[in-house]
Amino acid sequence: MGVRTALTDLLGIEHPIVLAPMGGVAGGELAGAVSEAGGLGLLGAGGGQRDWLEREIDILRARTEKPWGVGLLAWALELPTLEWVIAQRPSMIMVSFGDPAPFVQSVRAANIPLAVQVTTLSDARQALELGADVVVAQGAEAGGHGEGRGTLPFVPAVVDVAGDTPVLAAGGIADGRGLAAALVLGAAGAVIGTRFEATPEALLSAEETAAIVAANASGTTRDRVLDVAQDSAWPRRFTARTLRNRFTDTWHDKEDALRFDSIAKEEFTAGVDRGDMDYLPIWAGEAVDLIAGVEPAAAVVERIADEARWALNSVRTNPGTPPD
Amino acid sequence: MGVRTALTDLLGIEHPIVLAPMGGVAGGELAGAVSEAGGLGLLGAGGGQRDWLEREIDILRARTEKPWGVGLLAWALELPTLEWVIAQRPSMIMVSFGDPAPFVQSVRAANIPLAVQVTTLSDARQALELGADVVVAQGAEAGGHGEGRGTLPFVPAVVDVAGDTPVLAAGGIADGRGLAAALVLGAAGAVIGTRFEATPEALLSAEETAAIVAANASGTTRDRVLDVAQDSAWPRRFTARTLRNRFTDTWHDKEDALRFDSIAKEEFTAGVDRGDMDYLPIWAGEAVDLIAGVEPAAAVVERIADEARWALNSVRTNPGTPPD
Repeated sequence: MGVRTALTDLLGIEHPIVLAPMGGVAGGELAGAVSEAGGLGLLGAGGGQRDWLEREIDILRARTEKPWGVGLLAWALELPTLEWVIAQRPSMIMVSFGDPAPFVQSVRAANIPLAVQVTTLSDARQALELGADVVVAQGAEAGGHGEGRGTLPFVPAVVDVAGDTPVLAAGGIADGRGLAAALVLGAAGAVIGTRFEATPEALLSAEETAAIVAANASGTTRDRVLDVAQDSAWPRRFTARTLRNRFTDTWHDKEDALRFDSIAKEEFTAGVDRGDMDYLPIWAGEAVDLIAGVEPAAAVVERIADEARWALNSVRTNPGTPPD
Repeated sequence: MGVRTALTDLLGIEHPIVLAPMGGVAGGELAGAVSEAGGLGLLGAGGGQRDWLEREIDILRARTEKPWGVGLLAWALELPTLEWVIAQRPSMIMVSFGDPAPFVQSVRAANIPLAVQVTTLSDARQALELGADVVVAQGAEAGGHGEGRGTLPFVPAVVDVAGDTPVLAAGGIADGRGLAAALVLGAAGAVIGTRFEATPEALLSAEETAAIVAANASGTTRDRVLDVAQDSAWPRRFTARTLRNRFTDTWHDKEDALRFDSIAKEEFTAGVDRGDMDYLPIWAGEAVDLIAGVEPAAAVVERIADEARWALNSVRTNPGTPPD
């Protein structure tokens, strides 16, 4: 009863639903649950911290024997780390945010499908020239880091340059209507993040999960405040969409001043250390509007797949017969 | 052979395709051509300048006897102007950008469907409470004025609060894939602007049309530069997406300084007066990526309708049978 796409064929999975590799959120419990339900769980491995990955891969393997993958940050990744990840035999490796060129050869030599996430059309062209097996077109609606394009027009533009290479849509998708939209735009599936934050399997506190469920999109912000507050090495071009809080409201559009304000940065660190919601960074995309409650990840996968079929069938096309 | 929706049923039109009422672009030739092809042409009437409207309605009526409409700016509209527009018996009146409350009673009393364009969920709720017959959910991808939401997650969020009221999707839609996406997201149709700028019927010079065709989305900007340069009365919350040019590149994110720079504003006015592309404001949405050339408006309408049916039928759903 699935929707078949180039992605489900490539990986032998049931649903064209990929868990976004959200740093600090998508661990083995969540990725394992998504994979076991027939999607593809991607561990949010950041730059590839070894002890975190070892632990979470163990947890994942205890939950599923189905395909799973790892998402890594190109700007923070080093080749020896990548070689270690490859040795764990994931079914897909996704590289995002930065130049994928140094990593292509190793992944392809291991015969593991390489997905490259892009945020501009010129980066999509580079990924295709490098031989990416899958291109993920991410729009600004996404939670976490990203750039400025809107998912709806960006996906077909990437599809138009991708030829036979499957494209996945990322950013703003939290239900089956969004998955159906991705598919009719020409994508082979959807990468879904924020919706999976509101699951018991996500590595979030109950307070953080509740904040995701309660939020609406106007309660999110895309900026560099939380990266600058942490003196993060994230490349400047990638802003992050998070829940707004008192700290982001204070410093939004004032990141250059924050950089040199050591008192504000200390205030931030202390706030985070005590778990204060006025300071905590919580990734959240515009799709928070579409999240009504906490559900197990498997239920989310199955509902999205069902809804997508329903949405596709709900449109009253009358091919071959005149409208009455 | 059409896609039937609540919009096509409401207006008795063939295709759920609405011409965005682009100020200075969507005149009688373009609106008439879209309506005659089975969509709904909306005149881009701004605040409702009487002599412009009289001329363009005459041109429109010479092209079609099918339904057409008028798009007006709430912040610039006055009741006597609206009453005059109502007397012309358009099939729909769309009000955008500002408080629609002062205009609802007159339009409803005339038994003309009232569409209210919104850019936030709270404005969508207000439009519904006021009794809008159609709500247009516009994303930041759109050309011209708008706000910050992404079309893909914004449309279903508006659909969820709209109940039985039809919702249209606006922003980032230029082909049948985008229309199909709008429909599966729950919309009853799409409002399409930029794609119709690249038609011979648009009120643009050949040079402006060529710039639209040549542009890609990274060549657009959303800001207040061109409004501030003209001392425009546009409400501050609505930025405009236009083609980038030398003037917008210089002043982007520096609008507050531009406001008080009379020399720069004089330079801008002189540039516009001589038709210099380094200064001319040209509305352009992110969907410029999807525009390959100039086509007659009727051909655009028919192609988008055909492509949408194709896109909806291209997804390999297997309801009721297991995947092989």
